[in-house]
Amino acid sequence: MAEPSAPIPTPRTLAAFVFPGFETLDLYGPLEMLGSLPGRVEVAIVAETREAVASVQGQRLLPDADVDDAPMPDLLLVPGGDSAIDVLQRERSLDWLRRAAADAELVLSVCTGSILLGGAGILDGRRATTNKRDFLATIGLAPQVEWIRQARWVEDGKYFTSSGVSAGMDMSLAVIGRLFGRDEAEEMAAGCEYDWHDDPHWDPFAVEAGLVAG
Amino acid sequence: MAEPSAPIPTPRTLAAFVFPGFETLDLYGPLEMLGSLPGRVEVAIVAETREAVASVQGQRLLPDADVDDAPMPDLLLVPGGDSAIDVLQRERSLDWLRRAAADAELVLSVCTGSILLGGAGILDGRRATTNKRDFLATIGLAPQVEWIRQARWVEDGKYFTSSGVSAGMDMSLAVIGRLFGRDEAEEMAAGCEYDWHDDPHWDPFAVEAGLVAG
Repeated sequence: MAEPSAPIPTPRTLAAFVFPGFETLDLYGPLEMLGSLPGRVEVAIVAETREAVASVQGQRLLPDADVDDAPMPDLLLVPGGDSAIDVLQRERSLDWLRRAAADAELVLSVCTGSILLGGAGILDGRRATTNKRDFLATIGLAPQVEWIRQARWVEDGKYFTSSGVSAGMDMSLAVIGRLFGRDEAEEMAAGCEYDWHDDPHWDPFAVEAGLVAG
Repeated sequence: MAEPSAPIPTPRTLAAFVFPGFETLDLYGPLEMLGSLPGRVEVAIVAETREAVASVQGQRLLPDADVDDAPMPDLLLVPGGDSAIDVLQRERSLDWLRRAAADAELVLSVCTGSILLGGAGILDGRRATTNKRDFLATIGLAPQVEWIRQARWVEDGKYFTSSGVSAGMDMSLAVIGRLFGRDEAEEMAAGCEYDWHDDPHWDPFAVEAGLVAG
């Protein structure tokens, strides 16, 4: 007789929320990694409408869903960019982000994506970090957050917030580690030929930006 | 009297050639950096047609031009992906790639993008590298290339070829250094909070893949 099969797990859904002028690597660094787990993580791009969305570097991405039809995801990813704070004026997007974050298993942001989440009230009372050069100019938009000056990324409960741009990749590997184990994270880094900074306290850019003493 | 103004330099054009199933970070890592030089580098996405092109991770990108109307760029960027070798069957794309490479100031590839360039005859007699795990299985498609087993990237004349996925970012910073000076490359890395591996010989992944002794 055959052994009883293990149940096939349902893939987690990941929604990446994008807006005009998002920072390219904030989005695609994490998606290179979290998007390479077939059968375990299924990615959808969500935007306010289904029209193409251009990053600040200019490439045009077609959303898979808009805020009216996107289902609530297991994992929510929010990139940053100088225009992230403009989303704080967009009520339909904010409403979707608040509902998605409340429902999600994990909420991830890269760079000034945490300023958007924080400004929307999603990180109230949480520890979080953000881009280092923009740190002092932006954290005032979210005063209810405990902002951490020196961190590659900060993990507080279900919230993962990374520092600027490239830091999103290090954080994403930590997320893979949390969801699927350390070995999976290391294998993903090796497959991408990526030198994972796996210490969340590693952050020379906080020193360079003058946020902490060197 | 006013000083005579320095002439405003014409921006260089960069064409990134994409195909179905391209590897996400191969493209967007370099574009985060080379696409953030306004007035100095102008990026266009080129594909065989103007229809949306999905990466292997599934996100859909709208090309800016197709191989019938794309002008010859100053800088040509070719990402990789498992499907890069499929482009070797597509004569219209190969014809455009050969003409663009011949005309370009610099030709850049990431990961198996060099297998595509090499298979198209564009790297004959040149030194080049490629993805380390796929190395031995793919270099036979381009036997006229001198393949370098251990290298983060290889620079041979106007040709820059990088190792797998993440290596494209390190190579792109080297390209910025060559075009605009070392200081610009370091500033770009810092702005992206990126830990630049600026030594082209740094390549622990060649050891891990068993291509060279540890």
